[in-house]
Amino acid sequence: MPEKQHERYEDSELYKIRHSAAHIMAQAVMEMFPGEARIAIGPPVEDGFYYDFELPRSLTQDDLDAIEQRMRAIIAGNHPFVRREVSADEAKHEFQNQPYKLELIEGLEKGGQDEYGNPLGEKVTISFYTHDQFTDLCRGPHVIDTGKINPAAIKLMHIAGAYWRGDANRPQLQRIYGTAWKTAEELEQFLWKQEEAKKRDHRKLGKELGLFYFSDDVGPGLPLFTPKGEMLRHIMESYVRDTQTRYGYEHVWTGHLVKEDLYKRSGHYDNYINSMFPPMEDEGVKFRLKPMNCPSHMTLYKEMGMHSYRDLPLRLSEFATLYRYEKTGELSGLTRVRALTQDDCHTFCRPDQIQQEFSLSLRLIQEVLARYAFTDYRVRLSLRGEQGKFVADDEKWELATAALKAALDANNVAYDVAVGEAAFYGPKADFMARDVLGREWQLSTIQVDFIQPARLGCEYKGEDGQMHTPVVLHRAVTGTTERFMGVIIEHYAGAFPLWLAPVQAEIIPVADRHLGYAREVAGKLKAEGFRVAVDERGERMQAKIRDAQLQKIPYMLVVGDKEAAAGAVSVRKRSGEDLKSKLLAEFIAMARAEIEPKK
Amino acid sequence: MPEKQHERYEDSELYKIRHSAAHIMAQAVMEMFPGEARIAIGPPVEDGFYYDFELPRSLTQDDLDAIEQRMRAIIAGNHPFVRREVSADEAKHEFQNQPYKLELIEGLEKGGQDEYGNPLGEKVTISFYTHDQFTDLCRGPHVIDTGKINPAAIKLMHIAGAYWRGDANRPQLQRIYGTAWKTAEELEQFLWKQEEAKKRDHRKLGKELGLFYFSDDVGPGLPLFTPKGEMLRHIMESYVRDTQTRYGYEHVWTGHLVKEDLYKRSGHYDNYINSMFPPMEDEGVKFRLKPMNCPSHMTLYKEMGMHSYRDLPLRLSEFATLYRYEKTGELSGLTRVRALTQDDCHTFCRPDQIQQEFSLSLRLIQEVLARYAFTDYRVRLSLRGEQGKFVADDEKWELATAALKAALDANNVAYDVAVGEAAFYGPKADFMARDVLGREWQLSTIQVDFIQPARLGCEYKGEDGQMHTPVVLHRAVTGTTERFMGVIIEHYAGAFPLWLAPVQAEIIPVADRHLGYAREVAGKLKAEGFRVAVDERGERMQAKIRDAQLQKIPYMLVVGDKEAAAGAVSVRKRSGEDLKSKLLAEFIAMARAEIEPKK
Repeated sequence: MPEKQHERYEDSELYKIRHSAAHIMAQAVMEMFPGEARIAIGPPVEDGFYYDFELPRSLTQDDLDAIEQRMRAIIAGNHPFVRREVSADEAKHEFQNQPYKLELIEGLEKGGQDEYGNPLGEKVTISFYTHDQFTDLCRGPHVIDTGKINPAAIKLMHIAGAYWRGDANRPQLQRIYGTAWKTAEELEQFLWKQEEAKKRDHRKLGKELGLFYFSDDVGPGLPLFTPKGEMLRHIMESYVRDTQTRYGYEHVWTGHLVKEDLYKRSGHYDNYINSMFPPMEDEGVKFRLKPMNCPSHMTLYKEMGMHSYRDLPLRLSEFATLYRYEKTGELSGLTRVRALTQDDCHTFCRPDQIQQEFSLSLRLIQEVLARYAFTDYRVRLSLRGEQGKFVADDEKWELATAALKAALDANNVAYDVAVGEAAFYGPKADFMARDVLGREWQLSTIQVDFIQPARLGCEYKGEDGQMHTPVVLHRAVTGTTERFMGVIIEHYAGAFPLWLAPVQAEIIPVADRHLGYAREVAGKLKAEGFRVAVDERGERMQAKIRDAQLQKIPYMLVVGDKEAAAGAVSVRKRSGEDLKSKLLAEFIAMARAEIEPKK
Repeated sequence: MPEKQHERYEDSELYKIRHSAAHIMAQAVMEMFPGEARIAIGPPVEDGFYYDFELPRSLTQDDLDAIEQRMRAIIAGNHPFVRREVSADEAKHEFQNQPYKLELIEGLEKGGQDEYGNPLGEKVTISFYTHDQFTDLCRGPHVIDTGKINPAAIKLMHIAGAYWRGDANRPQLQRIYGTAWKTAEELEQFLWKQEEAKKRDHRKLGKELGLFYFSDDVGPGLPLFTPKGEMLRHIMESYVRDTQTRYGYEHVWTGHLVKEDLYKRSGHYDNYINSMFPPMEDEGVKFRLKPMNCPSHMTLYKEMGMHSYRDLPLRLSEFATLYRYEKTGELSGLTRVRALTQDDCHTFCRPDQIQQEFSLSLRLIQEVLARYAFTDYRVRLSLRGEQGKFVADDEKWELATAALKAALDANNVAYDVAVGEAAFYGPKADFMARDVLGREWQLSTIQVDFIQPARLGCEYKGEDGQMHTPVVLHRAVTGTTERFMGVIIEHYAGAFPLWLAPVQAEIIPVADRHLGYAREVAGKLKAEGFRVAVDERGERMQAKIRDAQLQKIPYMLVVGDKEAAAGAVSVRKRSGEDLKSKLLAEFIAMARAEIEPKK
């Protein structure tokens, strides 16, 4: 399939719209505080823009509404954006009452900084952009005139504090965040997604559903999973494990630490040292927590003895928790942790098996993503560039690249090609999946490796009687259990499908006298393999139903006199839908059918 | 049930027999090398005795036979063992030509050493024991005369090198190991067990069956499990997990490291620091690999929020790999490792729930041990002593001790009481199980803890509205996956029962043209949940059958023309037993029945 070209955000129309909206907002704020507003910087950001101000008082929501109104009036004026190149002196004169701009101009004058104070490799021309009554120190680009901004597609979002230059020792400024789109519909869609993303935030839902916690006593980025959270992990990992087994993958166990020397030989020490936890040292031997499995799997491959070409492929998978020393400031809920359990596999194969093994991985990944309702995804095929870090072995690159493309085509998988984005050791394919809010997550990956197996001395005896180095395919399906759990909590808004829900049904007795029957129902459902609980609290039935709904438990089975007499349960879904009374056997059959993967 | 008294080995008749046999052996050796043999030490040891000699030449197996013959002749003389107390000078005179004895006598003279050169708290009287023509420096005790030794129940086992006083800078001596029993039957039984234990050594079988390896590249005591070994682990852990779930235990996940400070607060830092891996330190924060789960589970308990008395018991289980920094010299196969995966549980309960929870653990342990064919076990109930380390809280000790005894009685579990052997934080019960060779292994443990929950601030709100500290029961069922795997490999001699075998059946095509049918059979068995493989190698059928037997695979399913035509398999057991042709459905039903736990 053809290579696609992606437009860079910086080159897009939306970028210009947002950049221009930031200038218009600054003008409106300056008009609101004549002679008193100090302006700092105001760049476009993902999904919007901001501008930082020093003002005589704190802004309120009413101010935001007034500023937004004034912005619409300025837009209606169709003022052109005019660029002008100026000398540093001229720039300083223009902004003589604006200390932040003066500091930026000095940075530009010295070189090495852009107009936002960011480091820059080269010295740039100083330029102004003027529209209506407002001039800013700015590189551009902008829309042609303010009329190109849709007044129905802008919105000021919120106010936050921000230190000048991110330095807690410099003045704290007021930052106004806004957003701008091409159409009112796009804005509305964006606002809905924002609202929905807040509701779905896995850190918030994780607490509400009681799935996991972080504790200062244990350490940052090291989640603790409750019984419900562990059950979710267990279901996720068991599902991938069972699927892998069905596809012919085998599982190994290699623990959580190795001698540091192994990483020196594998090359990881040089490339990943900053991601590793500090060493454990005693009597001259250093151990490291495993940040990846590859060297351990290759060591096991060697210990297993002589391999013949007939024994390959050998597909060694492991759910090993890896530890990466992410900076505490970069940690975020489950999506950026220090303890990450990869669903990792290393396939040792002959060069002529690359296509077959890549194809097997592709099909496995497609099946798993479909099970998690990720149907909108793209594959990015990263190939080597003309020059750079790439291992010099034309024959292998060509063989592998051809094998990957053939496998993608044979499986009808559309893909983009990213030239120069390959790992140094071989080409790779990444799966980028969109969740229900349209946010893209990089999940699965398959990487071809020509290098590590040779570095660590992995061999097999070929049909020719000679020793050869196997090719290794590194592969992860859902990526890591922790991050994928964070993603699916948001994807499903915590309302997991029946097969995945840690508690599938809550049995709710109408009155205390129905507790016996409730327990009987629970026992029967457990014996059939369902995960159920009885709400034995002394609360009222309606309160129990509401709590089960808040816990997003798929089914509430209410049992009273009629149900006990009939061997039935009164079935309600968490959506509130009432499926009325069903014989227990009927409910079981219905639930079974719901759990079956869609073909 | 009554407290039993165990006889100390040092006080037993067998100890005297072996001690006397060592003297008789020394006499025989001295007679073999008149005037040339230098004797060192010769104590009884577990299952036998040894003596160390400096001799003019290396001993051979023929020498051993001759020495054994001569020992029988000395025994037949019915020579009495005569004790005599002597002065140091007299002793030195007697052993003037025996430099090792002279060194020992000097030690005795100075005090602080026994006649084997071992450190001793007090100064002892120097004594000789003489029988026939041989006198030894000896504390005794001995049998009355040599005739009390059964000549048909002694055997010299092997020769080994041993440095004088275990010091590699001192002379290397020849050590003869022997064994002695009361009856020829006991000797025979012992020799059979020795032979059998060698064959069953899990380190040897682990390699032969391809279950696990150790690698210098990864580190000592850190096993790597192959696909077959991992499958065995997985079956073992899944079985315990499923059983725990059925008993109402829940599972949590708390990772592999925590901040060191937590262990300072829990008290583990003071008591277990030597068992911990060295710290990982960065910017003043130290992390430690978890050597136990308790502090992590208690932290999770707290993070989960307010607990009511109605929420208890809370049974938090985890299959977490713990890391203990055992000395490299003390590591041994899987039974002493640095990476150990406990089937750990911490039950948080009210004091009035101790008996019920202890009882639940007892029943769970009994069921699991029975599943692994451990039917011969005893329980050791360790209680506090009159004085010592034990937490001072009479009421709690009495409550817990009574609860444990009542639970043991109610479940008809026989037990010995070991006064003074409790942990400082509460009483405990250990399960000591005998394997098929009669060797005793400490497996399961249940410990009551009054201390740690308070130290780490765990609380629940009682019925009285006040906050209380829960009691915690620490519990392990099989102990650790690694050690238990080592034990069951030896217990089953690698011939795992069908439910536990990593590969349950090997399908063997008679000729290449039956490969299609073999794969069809494999597919059907896999779909029914069996773990099977097809032997697709180009070997002859008989060789494949032999290999499957060596791999101790429970069933070999041979398929040829007749089987393919009939939808059948020709069934052979690993024992060699031929079950003839069976319809595939018949085999499935038979295997299912075999897998079912015995009631």
